[in-house]
Amino acid sequence: MLTFAIFSLLLHFAMQASPPLDQVFQYIDEHQDDYVQHLKEWIAIQSESSNPTKRDDVIRMMQVVGETIKRLGGTVELTDVGNEELPSGKIIPLPPVVLGKLGKDPNKTTVGIYGHVDVQPARFEDGWSTDPYLLTEKDGNLYGRGSSDDKGPVLAWLHAIEAFQALKQELPVNLKFIFEGMEESGSKGLDELLKAKNETFFSNIDYIVISDSAWLSKKPALTYGTRGLCYFIIEVQCANQDLHSGLYGGTVHEAMTDLIALLDSLVNSTGYVLIPGIDSDVVPLTNEERVLYKEIEFNLEAFKHTIGTTELLHKTKEDVLLHRWRFPSLSIHGIEGAFSGPGAKTVIPAKVTGKFSIRLVPNMDPDKLSNQVMTYLNGVFAARGSPNQMQVALESGSKAWVAHVTDKQYDAGRRAISKVFGVEAELIREGGTIPVARSLQHTTQKSVMMLPIGSPDDRIHSQDEKLSRDNYINGTKLFAAYIAEISQH
Amino acid sequence: MLTFAIFSLLLHFAMQASPPLDQVFQYIDEHQDDYVQHLKEWIAIQSESSNPTKRDDVIRMMQVVGETIKRLGGTVELTDVGNEELPSGKIIPLPPVVLGKLGKDPNKTTVGIYGHVDVQPARFEDGWSTDPYLLTEKDGNLYGRGSSDDKGPVLAWLHAIEAFQALKQELPVNLKFIFEGMEESGSKGLDELLKAKNETFFSNIDYIVISDSAWLSKKPALTYGTRGLCYFIIEVQCANQDLHSGLYGGTVHEAMTDLIALLDSLVNSTGYVLIPGIDSDVVPLTNEERVLYKEIEFNLEAFKHTIGTTELLHKTKEDVLLHRWRFPSLSIHGIEGAFSGPGAKTVIPAKVTGKFSIRLVPNMDPDKLSNQVMTYLNGVFAARGSPNQMQVALESGSKAWVAHVTDKQYDAGRRAISKVFGVEAELIREGGTIPVARSLQHTTQKSVMMLPIGSPDDRIHSQDEKLSRDNYINGTKLFAAYIAEISQH
Repeated sequence: MLTFAIFSLLLHFAMQASPPLDQVFQYIDEHQDDYVQHLKEWIAIQSESSNPTKRDDVIRMMQVVGETIKRLGGTVELTDVGNEELPSGKIIPLPPVVLGKLGKDPNKTTVGIYGHVDVQPARFEDGWSTDPYLLTEKDGNLYGRGSSDDKGPVLAWLHAIEAFQALKQELPVNLKFIFEGMEESGSKGLDELLKAKNETFFSNIDYIVISDSAWLSKKPALTYGTRGLCYFIIEVQCANQDLHSGLYGGTVHEAMTDLIALLDSLVNSTGYVLIPGIDSDVVPLTNEERVLYKEIEFNLEAFKHTIGTTELLHKTKEDVLLHRWRFPSLSIHGIEGAFSGPGAKTVIPAKVTGKFSIRLVPNMDPDKLSNQVMTYLNGVFAARGSPNQMQVALESGSKAWVAHVTDKQYDAGRRAISKVFGVEAELIREGGTIPVARSLQHTTQKSVMMLPIGSPDDRIHSQDEKLSRDNYINGTKLFAAYIAEISQH
Repeated sequence: MLTFAIFSLLLHFAMQASPPLDQVFQYIDEHQDDYVQHLKEWIAIQSESSNPTKRDDVIRMMQVVGETIKRLGGTVELTDVGNEELPSGKIIPLPPVVLGKLGKDPNKTTVGIYGHVDVQPARFEDGWSTDPYLLTEKDGNLYGRGSSDDKGPVLAWLHAIEAFQALKQELPVNLKFIFEGMEESGSKGLDELLKAKNETFFSNIDYIVISDSAWLSKKPALTYGTRGLCYFIIEVQCANQDLHSGLYGGTVHEAMTDLIALLDSLVNSTGYVLIPGIDSDVVPLTNEERVLYKEIEFNLEAFKHTIGTTELLHKTKEDVLLHRWRFPSLSIHGIEGAFSGPGAKTVIPAKVTGKFSIRLVPNMDPDKLSNQVMTYLNGVFAARGSPNQMQVALESGSKAWVAHVTDKQYDAGRRAISKVFGVEAELIREGGTIPVARSLQHTTQKSVMMLPIGSPDDRIHSQDEKLSRDNYINGTKLFAAYIAEISQH
């Protein structure tokens, strides 16, 4: 009896002594299996925004997000952002954007949280080890399409809020949610929505925080810049139907020959983009800037190992990071309309569409770049003297983004990282494109910060995408800590 | 009563007066709807030989062919030709080759008939107007995968035989059948079978006839030559999984960049194949040969119209035909492993496989060509200084074929064409590859002739493949006439 009495006393004392945020952390640890289960349910929804046949899944995903916010006591508007016209001319609805609110205390800071719940396409046949739409846990990792990009982080925000509520702790901030379903497809409809709601929904937001990227290493990071993206397609047509290479080979200006030559004219073997004028708008690199890159923790060998390559385009840590974040790059993604299956097919494809994209850095402009690309490719094609029909189109374009790291929420982010992980935050940029960062900053003129919880080896957009259980759960704590820290401004 | 008696008398007279072959022609005309129905049943079997998941369909197709020959009173052996090892390492059975016999009168000529009942892959999504595996008749054409290449012609042979039998006419020749199910995939297993059976099954065959090609124009033709084919794959790997172009673009030697450069090094914009040494073995063109080409009926404008192009690689009829039949050509078919779907995906594919093929003419040798291609591409790749893994492989190789048009069966073919169509046969070559023509001639040392019934606009290997009802039915008559004519040797 005595033992029990002492134990109870100690427990009572511990509970009293434990600061509120530590209680939140403990609650999060204890409920992590529930959080994994929720993620499993979200991943099961095949919300591929670039695949028109899955549009209903994206819309259902948005409804699920809305319901989750309502269960937290928030109010939700599933905001219609119009339709999308497919290349076939068919019109399909864009998924609604979830605009949510939780709390409206005028004495509290108001934080806007952005995330997306659409995903890149994924099929088991692409080479996944497990069903991409069935969350599978192995060796501490949660595998599944969208686990890291970006369903896991969105759920982590909602779980962090739920933890405060379950412990009957008052939420220290007001929250607004902007969750979209078209991020992987150029955030169609979002810019117009931001403009339309700028004077209403967005007007009283103080800070906007985004978690849709990854750390650079095992060190938690704050991200203050992203590259932009221009996605181009080149369409070449040589015939009104696919041709047999035996019957027509040697007689026809083949569309593939033209397309391959056009694609080959874009970038050389050192990764240098061959489009004239592309470098003219790139902000010149300063010496101060170059020094910053020296301090960043980045293991070239580990980076190579993650990729599975022996040699990169650049030799030093600084150059690799600069070319990843600070200079434009061009990637050729594939060809639609040519033979792409296994085996051998002796076809001369009638119409082929090459797809490539360029990552933009400050101060490159998508429209200007698009003109440069078209002028260049039209010239290359004209020089071939081909009678085929060729056209280049800009599929989507977005500018790069850079934030002011002196904004107060970067301090809050640093303190939150220090509290959860016990280390200094790393200040990094991001090679990928989260156009909404720029859109949100540009339209609302608020401070925007990216607070990632993903790892650099999460293989987002690739086979076997994952989020580690540790990052998922500690990320949930980080968001709770951020909410606590930002409230003190 | 009187009328009926006169009618019967006239009918009796007509039957008596009508030569046996005309009766066969009439029977064929009267049963054409049955023949279309049979073709519908065969087309419904998705016997794609290059698609390992359809191997059971190919095997079933071979069984159906065997049963059909048995119903005509023939004997059939479904000959096991071994297994196929897939790139994955998996072993699957090759479809059996149908070896059939009908008649063994030592006083009759023995004709060997070759055909194939496997097909090129086809999916409705490729742009077909109708289900490729549901025969659909429209405007006098029978649409469906395999209608022209080569199920229609194989059935036409069997129907021609059936017509003789139904009219109780003795078949004027002995027949042997060689029907395979791997023609569209390099006729795997067939060469070994030819060699193994050369002293037995093939020993007493006098003539071998193949119907697996098309006329050049609306004029019925005999084909005396085909081009060979070397199908190559180039595999480039830059990473152990697909990469996100935002996270890795600018840092990695991308596999697609290398592959595109390699493919672009193969052929120039005038269709000239850039592989050094490729022309060295091509039999020089003689003046006599060039004159032959002048006489061939070939409408360049109609050819362009069929393709849907305004301009060909060559200007004159003679040059177009020479480059179609008589000179090598190179076609790039596509890329496996890159993004090939609709929409936009910002992937850096980890491993990509480019596919191209070269059509061979006499006296090019696949092994020699393969060495030339590999030496050249290895050189192009080495000059890039890429750390990626690259390998070129010859997927399949077959030589060109040319026959002696002075062989007696070419006379029989000419007379048969004259009888059915009332015109002179055109003597042509074929740009496509029917390696079995060369194999049969080379192994058995028999006279081989190609007796096509397809039209040049049949779109074989392409969307909306068709055989016209006229060609199908008149082709059946042609085969009956050929059987009658060749028996007179």
